[in-house]
Amino acid sequence: MLALYFDAQPAIKELPRPEPGPGEVLVRVHRAGICGTDLQILRGYHGFKGIMGHEFVGEVAGPEDSPWLGQRVVGEINLGCGACDLCRRGLAGHCRQRRVLGLKDHDGAMAHYLTLPAANLHAVPPEVPDIFAVFTEPLAAAMRVLEAAMVSPEARVLVVGDGSLGLQISWVLALSGADVHLAGHHPEHLALARPHGVAVYLSADLPAGDYDIVVEASGSPTGLDLAIARVRPRGTVVMKSTYVGRYPLDPAALVVPEVSLVGCRCGPFAGALRLLRDGRVDPRPLIDRTFPLARGLEALARAQRPGVLKVLIDCREAD
Amino acid sequence: MLALYFDAQPAIKELPRPEPGPGEVLVRVHRAGICGTDLQILRGYHGFKGIMGHEFVGEVAGPEDSPWLGQRVVGEINLGCGACDLCRRGLAGHCRQRRVLGLKDHDGAMAHYLTLPAANLHAVPPEVPDIFAVFTEPLAAAMRVLEAAMVSPEARVLVVGDGSLGLQISWVLALSGADVHLAGHHPEHLALARPHGVAVYLSADLPAGDYDIVVEASGSPTGLDLAIARVRPRGTVVMKSTYVGRYPLDPAALVVPEVSLVGCRCGPFAGALRLLRDGRVDPRPLIDRTFPLARGLEALARAQRPGVLKVLIDCREAD
Repeated sequence: MLALYFDAQPAIKELPRPEPGPGEVLVRVHRAGICGTDLQILRGYHGFKGIMGHEFVGEVAGPEDSPWLGQRVVGEINLGCGACDLCRRGLAGHCRQRRVLGLKDHDGAMAHYLTLPAANLHAVPPEVPDIFAVFTEPLAAAMRVLEAAMVSPEARVLVVGDGSLGLQISWVLALSGADVHLAGHHPEHLALARPHGVAVYLSADLPAGDYDIVVEASGSPTGLDLAIARVRPRGTVVMKSTYVGRYPLDPAALVVPEVSLVGCRCGPFAGALRLLRDGRVDPRPLIDRTFPLARGLEALARAQRPGVLKVLIDCREAD
Repeated sequence: MLALYFDAQPAIKELPRPEPGPGEVLVRVHRAGICGTDLQILRGYHGFKGIMGHEFVGEVAGPEDSPWLGQRVVGEINLGCGACDLCRRGLAGHCRQRRVLGLKDHDGAMAHYLTLPAANLHAVPPEVPDIFAVFTEPLAAAMRVLEAAMVSPEARVLVVGDGSLGLQISWVLALSGADVHLAGHHPEHLALARPHGVAVYLSADLPAGDYDIVVEASGSPTGLDLAIARVRPRGTVVMKSTYVGRYPLDPAALVVPEVSLVGCRCGPFAGALRLLRDGRVDPRPLIDRTFPLARGLEALARAQRPGVLKVLIDCREAD
């Protein structure tokens, strides 16, 4: 099968089709998405070696006796050991020995086929086309903000960062009825939030005032500076994005106003699929371009351009 | 009246007795405590100028028509404007225009007399002697940890820092039934937590394992390092102490394990007085020495010695 393989450099390779292990299924990948973390891998940050990609939609192609056979699916990306204290507490996503699809010790989705434990799968409702379903993972990550901070309909919320993640976060927060503001640097991206009832601002033009909750989704130290400066006393800063290097935190900026910084990563797939199924979120405006898998290197190059939102890879084998 | 006044340097001065304003009372101070924040003021960190001290117990001495007259009291230290959005939301302690007893724009407790709004007062039950009641403010600050993080009786909790604050935090956490560990550098301080059922360790000897909640009360970047290293995924680090300088925060250390950093400052006086009244907390082992107000400079010098816990000042006028 064809795959986008990373080992110091990304390359399109012909590799053997993977064999599902016990409890696993083989998935024929339909579409994969390129995420900021994939771009970090290209820079060598995670030390990952293998097939890239963790955002996907596909169809179960084996084993023959799987009750999932033929089912269109998306899949949670963390593979816990199943035995440690965290797995037994239902925190498999935080298992210290976890493997992660396309990110850590497990081949990913930018290929004709992938394997995953059947326990990681979610069936995609028939109403949700592939180009919607491929957003399940990033949309779920955006929805995790609703679990990380109590977002009341009375809340004033600021999202910092108008990339694909920041936009999706602003959309799902607006569904809560909260007063959602989005600050970013790209007028053409900010325009994608306005129809959702989100008040949008270029970061330099953000009016005075503070927020009950600020979500940092810019992936930059200046974004975290803005977040901490604009959260009210006893408010919450949700940190969604990582970046290389350290942030020079002033402890008094948290202790004196009793502010919380809450780290927040993967989210609830079932809820994301419901929003996609019911038409609450239409991710299509986020799609920049779709490349066939054979042109995966072009797709990665495109995704690295400043201001580009979501680049997809069509992973279906030509018939 | 005599007062310990700070203006670039601390000095014992003869000053006019303060006049209570509208809604305020005059308090004859019995005892005041020296806190780490006072020592920061000596180093000029807060730009404060005035009478020092925010931990006190005293007796209401005026005005003559106050219902509080003659009552023994302790007092909350934040003076909100009463009019802003935060004050109206019950967050006067976080009012942006707030004054703070002995810390910001309001003379403090290291004097024969102080003034405070009557609304800040709490009556001291007759069973609580002065040398207990003077710990109400720091004990309340320790108890604020119980509000900042949900401390379940099932929780494993680590307190980092065996100063006066860290010890009081370990004591009140142990009352919750949680499994409380304390890490510090002073065997003679750690010994004060052991009788409370707290497992104590020299920081270098802390056994492997992580914690549901870690409370940083050491006031040092290495303490925050230890806290973040030892909290479990989805756990909470409560930050109780500030220090000068910045902490080099790795954003991924919060985002990937979904850890929360929660800033935490002043606490509930009424609860602290109940614990003191009912003998749940006996602060006397924390008292290093008591100096008369006239020897306040010696008291400050003593409090700055490494390893010294609480130094008190007897503020009563000689008859």
